[in-house]
Amino acid sequence: METKRPTIPAAEEILGGYFPVLDHGFVSLVDYMGSDEDVERAARVSYGYGTRKVSQTRGLIRYLRRHRHTTPSEMVELKFHCAMPMFVARQWIRHRTASVNETSGRYSLMPLLFYTPGKDQFQLQSRSNNQGREGGAPPEVYKEAVERWERLRKESGDTYAWLLGEDVARELARIDLPLSMYTQWYWKMDLHNLLHFLSLRVDPRAQWEIRQYAHVIAGMVKRVAPLSYEAWVDYDLEGRVLTRVDRDALSRLVAADEAGVHARDGAVVGAQELKAAGLSAREITELAEKLRAPDHPDFELDLSTMKTAEDVAKEMYEAVPGTFE
Amino acid sequence: METKRPTIPAAEEILGGYFPVLDHGFVSLVDYMGSDEDVERAARVSYGYGTRKVSQTRGLIRYLRRHRHTTPSEMVELKFHCAMPMFVARQWIRHRTASVNETSGRYSLMPLLFYTPGKDQFQLQSRSNNQGREGGAPPEVYKEAVERWERLRKESGDTYAWLLGEDVARELARIDLPLSMYTQWYWKMDLHNLLHFLSLRVDPRAQWEIRQYAHVIAGMVKRVAPLSYEAWVDYDLEGRVLTRVDRDALSRLVAADEAGVHARDGAVVGAQELKAAGLSAREITELAEKLRAPDHPDFELDLSTMKTAEDVAKEMYEAVPGTFE
Amino acid sequence: METKRPTIPAAEEILGGYFPVLDHGFVSLVDYMGSDEDVERAARVSYGYGTRKVSQTRGLIRYLRRHRHTTPSEMVELKFHCAMPMFVARQWIRHRTASVNETSGRYSLMPLLFYTPGKDQFQLQSRSNNQGREGGAPPEVYKEAVERWERLRKESGDTYAWLLGEDVARELARIDLPLSMYTQWYWKMDLHNLLHFLSLRVDPRAQWEIRQYAHVIAGMVKRVAPLSYEAWVDYDLEGRVLTRVDRDALSRLVAADEAGVHARDGAVVGAQELKAAGLSAREITELAEKLRAPDHPDFELDLSTMKTAEDVAKEMYEAVPGTFE
Amino acid sequence: METKRPTIPAAEEILGGYFPVLDHGFVSLVDYMGSDEDVERAARVSYGYGTRKVSQTRGLIRYLRRHRHTTPSEMVELKFHCAMPMFVARQWIRHRTASVNETSGRYSLMPLLFYTPGKDQFQLQSRSNNQGREGGAPPEVYKEAVERWERLRKESGDTYAWLLGEDVARELARIDLPLSMYTQWYWKMDLHNLLHFLSLRVDPRAQWEIRQYAHVIAGMVKRVAPLSYEAWVDYDLEGRVLTRVDRDALSRLVAADEAGVHARDGAVVGAQELKAAGLSAREITELAEKLRAPDHPDFELDLSTMKTAEDVAKEMYEAVPGTFE
Repeated sequence: METKRPTIPAAEEILGGYFPVLDHGFVSLVDYMGSDEDVERAARVSYGYGTRKVSQTRGLIRYLRRHRHTTPSEMVELKFHCAMPMFVARQWIRHRTASVNETSGRYSLMPLLFYTPGKDQFQLQSRSNNQGREGGAPPEVYKEAVERWERLRKESGDTYAWLLGEDVARELARIDLPLSMYTQWYWKMDLHNLLHFLSLRVDPRAQWEIRQYAHVIAGMVKRVAPLSYEAWVDYDLEGRVLTRVDRDALSRLVAADEAGVHARDGAVVGAQELKAAGLSAREITELAEKLRAPDHPDFELDLSTMKTAEDVAKEMYEAVPGTFE
Repeated sequence: METKRPTIPAAEEILGGYFPVLDHGFVSLVDYMGSDEDVERAARVSYGYGTRKVSQTRGLIRYLRRHRHTTPSEMVELKFHCAMPMFVARQWIRHRTASVNETSGRYSLMPLLFYTPGKDQFQLQSRSNNQGREGGAPPEVYKEAVERWERLRKESGDTYAWLLGEDVARELARIDLPLSMYTQWYWKMDLHNLLHFLSLRVDPRAQWEIRQYAHVIAGMVKRVAPLSYEAWVDYDLEGRVLTRVDRDALSRLVAADEAGVHARDGAVVGAQELKAAGLSAREITELAEKLRAPDHPDFELDLSTMKTAEDVAKEMYEAVPGTFE
Repeated sequence: METKRPTIPAAEEILGGYFPVLDHGFVSLVDYMGSDEDVERAARVSYGYGTRKVSQTRGLIRYLRRHRHTTPSEMVELKFHCAMPMFVARQWIRHRTASVNETSGRYSLMPLLFYTPGKDQFQLQSRSNNQGREGGAPPEVYKEAVERWERLRKESGDTYAWLLGEDVARELARIDLPLSMYTQWYWKMDLHNLLHFLSLRVDPRAQWEIRQYAHVIAGMVKRVAPLSYEAWVDYDLEGRVLTRVDRDALSRLVAADEAGVHARDGAVVGAQELKAAGLSAREITELAEKLRAPDHPDFELDLSTMKTAEDVAKEMYEAVPGTFE
Repeated sequence: METKRPTIPAAEEILGGYFPVLDHGFVSLVDYMGSDEDVERAARVSYGYGTRKVSQTRGLIRYLRRHRHTTPSEMVELKFHCAMPMFVARQWIRHRTASVNETSGRYSLMPLLFYTPGKDQFQLQSRSNNQGREGGAPPEVYKEAVERWERLRKESGDTYAWLLGEDVARELARIDLPLSMYTQWYWKMDLHNLLHFLSLRVDPRAQWEIRQYAHVIAGMVKRVAPLSYEAWVDYDLEGRVLTRVDRDALSRLVAADEAGVHARDGAVVGAQELKAAGLSAREITELAEKLRAPDHPDFELDLSTMKTAEDVAKEMYEAVPGTFE
C-alpha cells in the first residue's frame, strides 16, 4: 500500500515473516514506526521537510547515545509476534516498558508444544555464576532427562486433554502444564527500551534460551534503525563501565590527551593494590575482561530461515489437543 | 512510498498537515502505527493473514473497552508535532506515559510568540469550581490586560534579545520569558493512554486552552482508529460513573431485566434521603448531571484550516529575535 | 523503634504477619509509607505541620477520587511479601506499575508446593463467560483430577530432584515444573495503582484464585488508608459506568435536580428500543446489573489466621527437595 | 511514634527539615521507606527475621549495581517537598518515574518569589557545549541584567495582582508570570530511579541550578541508604563507559589478569589511529577524561542550614500578593 510515513526497505523485506527460534518458537516483526531519521527529527524538534546527510544523522545519534539523551530514540517503535517457552516468557515479561498481549489459557486451547534443550545446551550448574550453566552433562543423563521430559509432557498433555474433554474450565485444566510449554504474544516496545532489553538479554549472564530471541530481535533492529543499532553495539554492547577504582588504577598506567593515549612504561598495579583499593577478586577478573579487545558480534538475520505466517499457524493449530478440532 | 504495514487512507490524508490551535499553536499528526484491526489482532494474538468483518471488529473493540481490557489498544501508536503556550505544556507534560522531545531553551533560540486569550475567553474566577473560570470580565479590564501583556512581552523579549546580544548563556537569557510563550515538541503516545489523556483534557474541568488541543487530537484519533474512537465516546466520554449510593437510589426508581428498563411509578428519592445516604450537595448536583441525556460531541477536523509544514516553520522562524537570523 | 514518619496503629498491628491464601500461599504487609493524611498533604502541597479534621480529609479524598485526581494517592506506598501458584503470578505480573522481586529458579531451589483446587472450586467451563467457570463438576471427575495431579506432581518433583542430584543447571532442571507450583515475591505498589489492581482483581471476571489474594490485600489497604479504601468501595468497586446509551434511556425514566431524583410515571424503554439504540443483548443484561442495588462487600482481615514469618519460612524450607538440605 | 518498620536514625535526624537551595528554593525529605537492608531482603526474597552482616549487605549491593540488577533498589522509596524556579521544574519533571503533586496556579495564589542568578553564575554561552555556559560575563552586563529582571518581575507581579484584584480567573491571571518564578511540589521516587536522576542531574552538563538540587538530594540519599549511595558513587557517578573503540585501544596499552594490570612498555595509540578507528575529535577528548584519576565528590548535607517547615512556609506566605491575605 501507499503511505507518506517513513518507510524502510530493509524492514519491509522481512515484515510479517517468521524467524524460527529454539525448537518451536519464533519472532516476527509485524510493524514498525520510524527509523534513524526520526530519532534525529525528534531530537531537533524539526519540521518534516528537508533532508540531512546520513553522516550528520550518524554523528547525532552517536552523540545522543554517548551522552544518555535517550528520549529521541523512544520515537521509534517496533512490534513483534513471538512464541517462546513459558519459563522464557516469565523472564521476558519483567521488562515493564513493553505493551503485551499474550494468548490466554483461560480462553484459548493451548497447543501441546514443549521445549527440549539440545544436547549441547544440556549443561551443569555453573560454579562461577550461581544462576548459570557450564560444561557438558554426561550423555546418559541427557538421555534419561529427555525420556523423563517426554513422559511428563505426555501425561501432562493427556491430563489437559482429559479435563477439557470433561468440560472442566480451561482456567483450571491448564494449571499442571509445565513451564517448558510454548506460549505466544504480541509485544511492542520503543527503540530506547528495546536496546536496553537487548543489552540485558544478549548478555552471557542471561539464560541461553532467551538470548536466542534477543539475537533475532537485534537483527531486526539492525534493519529498522541501522545507525542506532551500530551506536548501541559500539557504546553499550561492546562498552564496559570503568569504575572509580578501575579509573584510579588505569590513570597510573596510561596517559591520554588530544594527541592520543600511551602506556606509562613499567607501570603496574598489582592485585594486592587493587584489593586494598576496594576491588573484590571477582572485580579484578571483571577488570581484566573489560581491558581485553572487544568482540565484533553480528546479529545479521538469516533470511533463508524465514517462514510464512500460514506455515507457523499450521504447526500451532495441529498441536492443539485433537478432540477439539 | 510502498509499505506492507497497515495503512489508513483517512489518516494518510492529514499526515504531516498542520492544524492551527489558539493564536500561534498547532498540532500535526506526523506518524501512526496500526488501527482498529491491530487492536483486534493483538487481542486475539492472531496471525497476520485472514480478514474479519468490520462488525466483528467493532463488537470486540466495544467489549474490550467496556470490560477494561485496555492492553490491546496499546498496540496502536500516534506521533504528533505540537506547539503550545508553556502553561499548557506544563499541564500536558503531566501525562507520563508519553514520549516527548521538546525544543530546549538551553540550546535553541526561542521564537517570540505569545498567547493572548480572546475576548470571549477572558473570564472571571469561577465560584463553583475553584480552579476554573466563568462569566465575562468587563471589556475595559480586557483592554487593559491586553495592553499590560503587550508591554510585558515587549520588555521580556527585548531583555531576551539583549542578553543574547551580550552573549549571555541561552539557559540564563531565557529565565524571564513568560509562561504565555509558545514552545513545541514531538509527542508520541499509544492509543490506550491517548484516549485516557483525551478523557481528562476534553473535560470541561480542564483549562479551556488545553481543551482546544484535545479537540484536534480527538479528530485525528477518529481518523486513525474510528471504531476505538466511537467506543471511547460511548463508554468513556459520554459515560458517567454511578456510585454505590447513586445505584442504591436508582434501584428504587427503575427496574431492569432482559426485557428493558421501566420506571417504578411514584418512586422518589429526595435530597434529604440522598444526603442521609452520604451524598454531599455537590454530589447530588453531579447525579442530576449524570441522569441528563448525553451530548453527541463531534471532533471532526476542519480540513480547510490545514497548513503545510513550510508555512508553519516560517512563522516560527521569523519570530526568533532578529539579530540572530 | 521511634520514627517521625506518619505511623498507623492499625497497620502496625499486622505488619510482618503472614495471612494464608489458598492451600500454601500467603500475603504479608511488610512495609508502608503514608496514609490518608499524606494524600491530602500532597494534594494541598502543604507543609508538614498543622492538622486537619478527619471529615475534611474524607471530603477531599472523595472529591479527588470522583474527579480522577489520582496523583495524590500515588504518595502512599505499600510493600508485600506474597506466595502464589505460578499461573496466578503470571496474571499478577501484568500490572506493570509494581516493583517486583521474585525468587529465581535459576539461582534457588524451589520448594515442591503445588496448588490443588478445592472441591467447590473445581467447576466447568462457563457458557456465558468464555474465560470463566461455573457450576460443579461431577465428584468422580474431581477425584480423578486430584489423582492425576498428584501423580504428575510427584513425577515432576522427582525429575527436578533427580536433575539437581545429577548437578544439572538449576535453570534447566526447573523447566518441567508445572504452573500450579508456588513461587514468591516482594511486591510494592503505590495506593493509586494498588486500588486499580484491586478493582480488576476482586472483579468476578478475574480468576477465583487471584481474587483470594485481592481480598486479603484489600483488607490491608483498609488498615493503611481507611478513607481512601472507603472512597474506592463507593466510587469504583460498587460504582458502575452508565454508557451514553444507558444515560439516554435513563433520562427518559427518571428526572433529577437538586431536590432529588424521581421516577417518570409509566416510562418504559424496552429491549427492542435499547437494541435499536445500539446495545447488544449482553449490554442489556449488564445495564440491568448496574441498576440493581449494590452489595456492601467487606474485606476485613481475619486476624486469627495470621502466622509468623518463622512458621511460614519453615513450611517453605521443608518442601525443598530433601537431598539438598 | 513507635513503628515496626525499618527505621534509619541518620534519616530521622533530618526528616521534615528544610534545606535551602538557590535564593528562595528548598528540599525537604518528608518520608522514606526502607534502606540498604531492604534492598538485600528483596533481592533474596527473604523472610523478615534474621540479620546479616553489614559487609555481606555491602557486597551484595555492589554486585547488584555492577550487574544491572536494579529491581531490588526499587524497594526503597523517598518522598520530598521541594521549591524551585519553573525553568528548573520543567527540566525536573521530565523524569517520568516520579509521583508529583505541584501547586496549581489555577487554584492557588502564587508567591511572588523569583530566582536571580548570582554574579558567579552569570556566564556566557559555552563554545564547547551548545547548551551550557562558561566564563564570566562583564560586571556591567550583570548589573543591567539584574535591573532588567527586577523591573520585569515588578511589572509581572503587579499585573498578576491587578488581574486577581479584578477577579479575573487565576488560570488566566498567571499566564505572564516568568519562568524564573518559584513553584513547589511533593515528589516521590524509588531509589533505583532516584540514583538515575542523580546521575543525570549532578552531571556537569546539567544546568547549574538543577545541580544544586541534585547535590542536596544526594546528601539525603546518603543518609537513607549509605551503602547504595557508595556503590552509586563508585560504579556510576565516578564510573565511565569505555566504548568498543576505547577498549580496542586500551587493550594494546595494558594487559590485565588476576594478578593485576600493567602497562605494555612503549605502547602508543595516536590520535590519527583513534580517528581511523572511528573516534571523533570530541570522543578523543572524552577518552582522555575517562582515563584521568576520578574525583571523590562528597554530598554531605550541611545541617547548620536546616530550617523548620514553619519558617519556610512563612516566607512563601508573605510573598503572596498582599491584597489577598
